[in-house]
Amino acid sequence: MMRKLLAEGLGTAFLLIAVVGSGIMAEALSGGSVGLALLANAIATGCALYVLITIFGPVSGAHFNPAVTLVFLILGETPPRTAAACIVTQIAAGILGVWIAHLMFELPILQLSTTDRTGPGQWSADLIATFGLVLTILGGVRYRPECIPTLVGLYITGAYWFTASTSFANPAVTIARSYTDTFAGILSSHAPAFIVAQLVGAVLAVLVAGVVFAPDEHAAD
Amino acid sequence: MMRKLLAEGLGTAFLLIAVVGSGIMAEALSGGSVGLALLANAIATGCALYVLITIFGPVSGAHFNPAVTLVFLILGETPPRTAAACIVTQIAAGILGVWIAHLMFELPILQLSTTDRTGPGQWSADLIATFGLVLTILGGVRYRPECIPTLVGLYITGAYWFTASTSFANPAVTIARSYTDTFAGILSSHAPAFIVAQLVGAVLAVLVAGVVFAPDEHAAD
Amino acid sequence: MMRKLLAEGLGTAFLLIAVVGSGIMAEALSGGSVGLALLANAIATGCALYVLITIFGPVSGAHFNPAVTLVFLILGETPPRTAAACIVTQIAAGILGVWIAHLMFELPILQLSTTDRTGPGQWSADLIATFGLVLTILGGVRYRPECIPTLVGLYITGAYWFTASTSFANPAVTIARSYTDTFAGILSSHAPAFIVAQLVGAVLAVLVAGVVFAPDEHAAD
Amino acid sequence: MMRKLLAEGLGTAFLLIAVVGSGIMAEALSGGSVGLALLANAIATGCALYVLITIFGPVSGAHFNPAVTLVFLILGETPPRTAAACIVTQIAAGILGVWIAHLMFELPILQLSTTDRTGPGQWSADLIATFGLVLTILGGVRYRPECIPTLVGLYITGAYWFTASTSFANPAVTIARSYTDTFAGILSSHAPAFIVAQLVGAVLAVLVAGVVFAPDEHAAD
Repeated sequence: MMRKLLAEGLGTAFLLIAVVGSGIMAEALSGGSVGLALLANAIATGCALYVLITIFGPVSGAHFNPAVTLVFLILGETPPRTAAACIVTQIAAGILGVWIAHLMFELPILQLSTTDRTGPGQWSADLIATFGLVLTILGGVRYRPECIPTLVGLYITGAYWFTASTSFANPAVTIARSYTDTFAGILSSHAPAFIVAQLVGAVLAVLVAGVVFAPDEHAAD
Repeated sequence: MMRKLLAEGLGTAFLLIAVVGSGIMAEALSGGSVGLALLANAIATGCALYVLITIFGPVSGAHFNPAVTLVFLILGETPPRTAAACIVTQIAAGILGVWIAHLMFELPILQLSTTDRTGPGQWSADLIATFGLVLTILGGVRYRPECIPTLVGLYITGAYWFTASTSFANPAVTIARSYTDTFAGILSSHAPAFIVAQLVGAVLAVLVAGVVFAPDEHAAD
Repeated sequence: MMRKLLAEGLGTAFLLIAVVGSGIMAEALSGGSVGLALLANAIATGCALYVLITIFGPVSGAHFNPAVTLVFLILGETPPRTAAACIVTQIAAGILGVWIAHLMFELPILQLSTTDRTGPGQWSADLIATFGLVLTILGGVRYRPECIPTLVGLYITGAYWFTASTSFANPAVTIARSYTDTFAGILSSHAPAFIVAQLVGAVLAVLVAGVVFAPDEHAAD
Repeated sequence: MMRKLLAEGLGTAFLLIAVVGSGIMAEALSGGSVGLALLANAIATGCALYVLITIFGPVSGAHFNPAVTLVFLILGETPPRTAAACIVTQIAAGILGVWIAHLMFELPILQLSTTDRTGPGQWSADLIATFGLVLTILGGVRYRPECIPTLVGLYITGAYWFTASTSFANPAVTIARSYTDTFAGILSSHAPAFIVAQLVGAVLAVLVAGVVFAPDEHAAD
């Protein structure tokens, strides 16, 4: 259990260093081009996810995401006590990752975001983002487990661009991002609605995956 | 059959969310740099294709494209009734994907494109784009089936740039893109010529693949 | 033999469509940012190389490059008559690819480049670019043949940036690029020195590879 | 031993050609957009690392990095005499690579950087960068050795953006980069603190990896 939690903690902390750190760097260097900043942010996050899932996957499953842990709890693959400990670790480590990013960039450690991210467009976007993420993971688990790091890395790199919310798709990431007033931040009062949308998207994906990735009944199907 | 159609529908809807959604985001953030917008659009589409083909390929073949379904019908690998149901599903789901993209970005759901994409340069470009796509798929099927998601994702990311049409290469995508007046749109009266060019390119690729990817006759060849 | 030449021809033509076509598109859309244009050009070329080497490699070896064919001739793996036919095909198909790119972008088909690319910096750069390319290919052949498409695609994407010549590294590509007065062009009187540099780089790489990739003599080495 | 040192030397020289060469090209072409320059620099370096580790890994382990050689010395996998010879080779070859980059771009061969890179933010950033790099390598060695080239390439591409130091993470690279007054340079008097931070990060990663990547004790863990 300790190794699992260490892996989840290191992975989630590094994920937030990647998301928030690359956002700070990108905003500083992009000369006002938000598009260029988001491109760097999306590429850096995708790279980090590939690496972190590859090396921590065999240890803890590399969830780094309470919504994903919830999915494997629902599917009966993670016991409740483990799931609870993982989720607490993910949230704490995510915030720690944000603080490490601030430390590196010599910014005040303690910050609260002032970035508005709200409204039905944003909520539906993050619901779809999480629905797609969980469908991607469950499809990968079913058919190509060795490709899961690539699947998740590329899914998120793409979803930064094709969802209106830039694809948070992760309650621990959402909470952690409320603690930074930089490129990647979200006003903390706007976080709960994102998290609700993410959990709804995750549960819908479990239902749909149960049908579309079901074991074949007929060879001729 | 239902699982196949569900997979084709989910995949094609997500493909259009990726194409149209990333186009909207890219145009909004690129500050007038069409090059930066197309780069983001191309990367996001390639990422989405890799993911969607990996997870839905084992269920439905992951065509998401009436031209590709037609190819496998010609080759005798998809029965006519299945092919017809797939094509109807692809077209309907593509339009649904466009509408979901509009919903996320809080744009009017029902739109018609006003973007001109016409002329012999565009038509020859999309013929070549589809010829290359089908050749890529048939080469992958013949020699490296496990690489097809990467092959198609990278082919399309590249072809956004090296074909003058930005490589629609897909009748369902072409029809769906006529229903959005954003970055990725095409005037609906210009769509039919694109589709004709795509079908011609696909059939030519089947003929050429029959020669170049033929089974080896002589070990010394 | 016919299948091999068809594969070399299709592959080299598509490679030049990718190099020249993406250069034209990139220059048109980059609003004067040469850096953005080169980034798109490099990514599109790398994507195309991955695809073309994957699907044509099993048919013809996917050289698309007289310097590479020369290397396998020197190593005794391609017979002289086959090598000669391949090289002629590569050169002719490369020029055809440039013309197809012009056709798609509705530019005059017949052009001659007016872009200066000369001087000891450029020559040493393309010598190093080709040395690295051939070393990459021979290392891949020796240790990870299934990775050659990725190796070559990423090598060229990187070398666009880290060599001063943007890494032509291919006599057929060099000749073909003298027939376009667009982003990727080279003044035809400057092409011969590039080709000499490429051949020198290729031969040096064969010598170095003979040492560094030699079969292990001692298990303890 | 000679083949190993040749591989380490060629690899490290090419790595510096990639880092410094792409930095020069990127700065020249980016029209003042530091963000665009860093994106090209990061992508080119990642591409080069994938290639160099794939082809030289089977020969020498493809360290190209004294901190990595030190890690394998600590772990008892590289004998002290080999480690010392590798480190000397890496440092010398790195400087040679910088000089080759200058040659290609027709810049004065001998230069000293005037770029400030100092302060606790930079030092903590490069400590974290090297900690992450070594953790990535040790996780790869433990669970997916065939993915190490991809892991390191993507880790560094991402870490260019998510660490405040742009992730030198390599004492030989740091020394070599003090010999160029271009985009990638570092004032030589600022190099030692970077190297200390890198070695601390590497040793910390060995300790953490010993716990998190330990062999499983219980099947149920």
